[in-house]
Amino acid sequence: MNFILLEREDFSGKDRVRIAGRRLEHIRRVLGSVEGTELRVGLLNDRIGKGQIERIDNDALEMSVTLESEPPPPLPLRLILALPRPKVLNRTIAAAASMGVRQIDLINSWRVEKSYWDSPRLLESNLRMQCILGLEQAGDTVLPVIRMHRLFTPFVRGELRESIVDHLALLAHPAADTPVPRNLSGPVVLAIGPEGGFIVREVETFQEIGFTPVNLGPRILRVETAVACLVGRLF
Amino acid sequence: MNFILLEREDFSGKDRVRIAGRRLEHIRRVLGSVEGTELRVGLLNDRIGKGQIERIDNDALEMSVTLESEPPPPLPLRLILALPRPKVLNRTIAAAASMGVRQIDLINSWRVEKSYWDSPRLLESNLRMQCILGLEQAGDTVLPVIRMHRLFTPFVRGELRESIVDHLALLAHPAADTPVPRNLSGPVVLAIGPEGGFIVREVETFQEIGFTPVNLGPRILRVETAVACLVGRLF
Repeated sequence: MNFILLEREDFSGKDRVRIAGRRLEHIRRVLGSVEGTELRVGLLNDRIGKGQIERIDNDALEMSVTLESEPPPPLPLRLILALPRPKVLNRTIAAAASMGVRQIDLINSWRVEKSYWDSPRLLESNLRMQCILGLEQAGDTVLPVIRMHRLFTPFVRGELRESIVDHLALLAHPAADTPVPRNLSGPVVLAIGPEGGFIVREVETFQEIGFTPVNLGPRILRVETAVACLVGRLF
Repeated sequence: MNFILLEREDFSGKDRVRIAGRRLEHIRRVLGSVEGTELRVGLLNDRIGKGQIERIDNDALEMSVTLESEPPPPLPLRLILALPRPKVLNRTIAAAASMGVRQIDLINSWRVEKSYWDSPRLLESNLRMQCILGLEQAGDTVLPVIRMHRLFTPFVRGELRESIVDHLALLAHPAADTPVPRNLSGPVVLAIGPEGGFIVREVETFQEIGFTPVNLGPRILRVETAVACLVGRLF
């Protein structure tokens, strides 16, 4: 937590917030902040700035805040992820949020185990918390929109096809000949398969709607590593 | 585990291996392999190829193996990491190994908590296991060399200065003006600071021996995300 993410309900006055719970614990125990300490803060889905601690004790903290800047610009990337194993889902969502990804679609695929869809990690409250952890790490305020699509073909052929007309559409695929492009500035939609990859029919469905399979190199990376590596390369 | 990493002691004959324990469990329970199944295999620090299961039961598996190819080429990157928190060390080492990093130096820094150096995760056996998990993920065989340097200045001014003459030396630093370069082919040494960053005096020490501070963008990333993002961008 390099940054204290505030929500509307934290405000007790126009420029005054009161914080308890997880953030207070962190500010006291990890940052070791005291009265007078200045912290970087931001308001969820809004501006960033500074806060100065006016009172802090075991129960709560009060800060006066000034929100004077825009958050960092979004990464022009929409991620389409075959639903990862629950164990890696949290890390992947937090990492994507920390890099400025603003739209994530979790989709089904032949090689996604059915049981993954029953994981409590898919609850909105958990996905939101992982995004918040990523934003707190990065110093950003804008929550990504995360949606789930349990039917592969209707989603890809329908909504995805219609919504990517202005995007460069890429599919990370170990068997592809084309290397991942570099240094893009326009909007990109990037699909990443499950462990073991998308099956041939799924790759063909993506290609039919305009996706280009691209190759990230001879090594197979975990999804959270692949996402970060691709972000570094694309932008 | 996309790939079964063999060691010399697994060989019961010239082209024959016998495996038990962790890898057997994975092959049986996750991959669901049976007699006749062909698996991708590699010999530690040696070639990669294929194995065919000849016998498998609760206790062990026997495979005939053919090692016909070289492992993927190494990434020409040496990482200098301020010792990360124990909680993130394992993931960072495994991710770096999975991307083909072959040399990692874990160093002290003003903002590295002293207690991190006492973590059992720094035992050679654990670091080796994290590297193996990364290699099994990636389909690579070559173990990175990991070394530890508890004295910052003697290491940087002494050994590091002497060993980087042929390298492009970069320091990931949020306050830098120069963006991270792209698409390099020569050898790079990349230093990444602790949470909160290197202090000014440390940055100056790196600059004195030829490091250029470079900026990865307006967001602060976790070390394992930053490493992957930088690898994607640099190469």
